[in-house]
Amino acid sequence: MKISELSRRTGVPVASIKYFLRQGLLPAGRATAATLAEYGDEHAQRLRLIKALTTLGGLSIAATREVLGAVDQAHSSESALGAVSYALPVPVAAQGAAVHGAEAGAEAEAEADGTAAAEVAELLAALDWQAPGTSPHVQGLTVALEELRRLDAQYAPGELAAYARLAESVARLDLERAAGLDDPVALAERAVIVFAICAPVFELLRRLAQEDQVRRRVAGGGGISTGGDVAPR
Amino acid sequence: MKISELSRRTGVPVASIKYFLRQGLLPAGRATAATLAEYGDEHAQRLRLIKALTTLGGLSIAATREVLGAVDQAHSSESALGAVSYALPVPVAAQGAAVHGAEAGAEAEAEADGTAAAEVAELLAALDWQAPGTSPHVQGLTVALEELRRLDAQYAPGELAAYARLAESVARLDLERAAGLDDPVALAERAVIVFAICAPVFELLRRLAQEDQVRRRVAGGGGISTGGDVAPR
Repeated sequence: MKISELSRRTGVPVASIKYFLRQGLLPAGRATAATLAEYGDEHAQRLRLIKALTTLGGLSIAATREVLGAVDQAHSSESALGAVSYALPVPVAAQGAAVHGAEAGAEAEAEADGTAAAEVAELLAALDWQAPGTSPHVQGLTVALEELRRLDAQYAPGELAAYARLAESVARLDLERAAGLDDPVALAERAVIVFAICAPVFELLRRLAQEDQVRRRVAGGGGISTGGDVAPR
Repeated sequence: MKISELSRRTGVPVASIKYFLRQGLLPAGRATAATLAEYGDEHAQRLRLIKALTTLGGLSIAATREVLGAVDQAHSSESALGAVSYALPVPVAAQGAAVHGAEAGAEAEAEADGTAAAEVAELLAALDWQAPGTSPHVQGLTVALEELRRLDAQYAPGELAAYARLAESVARLDLERAAGLDDPVALAERAVIVFAICAPVFELLRRLAQEDQVRRRVAGGGGISTGGDVAPR
């Protein structure tokens, strides 16, 4: 198909397609004349993924390029998920906090006394989660907990573990959604969708649930209750 | 205290403090001379909150101003949580997708045929969640589901509900963390921390749990299993 048809089928403007081609996110089409190229279904599929990563996923062009590189280098289904997981940008927590840490200088350095690192290590051990200290997620969580402590908003003992157990259940659903695919590239593409693009969906569900619970408590006239059990219904 | 002491205590550079003052995010200090002002503990607390929102929370200056406006206008504990919830920016899903929708023109419009809206309405009814159609979270979720359908990555029946039940448990933990505060402004500040700033922490926990499960499945040699139960342990 021509670029105009590719645009029509994906809903991505021609100018954006040309930009993604120049940025190396989308492989070039098969040249049919000096200024014409032919595109296939694989271009349409890749374009939809790029669009979703940059809009729903909120990824930068550079981050999108890195993630797509991991997708294309997936040689086995075992390596595909891990590569995608590490290629995805770490949630804003660590990035923002790192910027702050660089700014804040000596005092912030002094405050990072290892308490948060110990807390993360203890949590991982208690949950029996396997993740090396070099994992970007371990490092991101450590920085985030340090920041919360500075804000005097640290988690009470047990609270973090309660969140972690729910996160584990969410991750289990995530991995189920990436199941049943044998082709490494198809599996890696699915992993990108589930790991990166569906994260905002869960965040929206959480915000909706918060909204519902706030509304109920206001309607009940009781302000903010301290009761209630935390198990899923 | 002087601005230099305020900087030392919060770890925020003097230049950033002056920027936040000019932007109206931080109330002016008490003038003690033409070029000197005195700041109090309330300035330090507000400054830590601004820092956390703009770094950990990833909020823009404009979004931070709006959230702090909602905090300062909280007159009752009943209204504080709702006001903060609606003042917070909707997760990137809806924003990014809205931009795309504007770009993609007629075809994208035609695709938004109400399927996603019906799916969201059905989900809310099944969960007995109270949220009006005008809620930014309802609208954001609708747009996100439309986008996933375009990507041919819609949720299977039941999957979305399974995620929603876990989100409900997370929201319940969130509201417990905002419990026990009577002062509306203090409650609103806590709500900002829990709703906006702790979201990246949960996302990091989810990424860590994904990492653990990927590692286990690779170690088990089974690739990606389709088994396993989704209930929290």
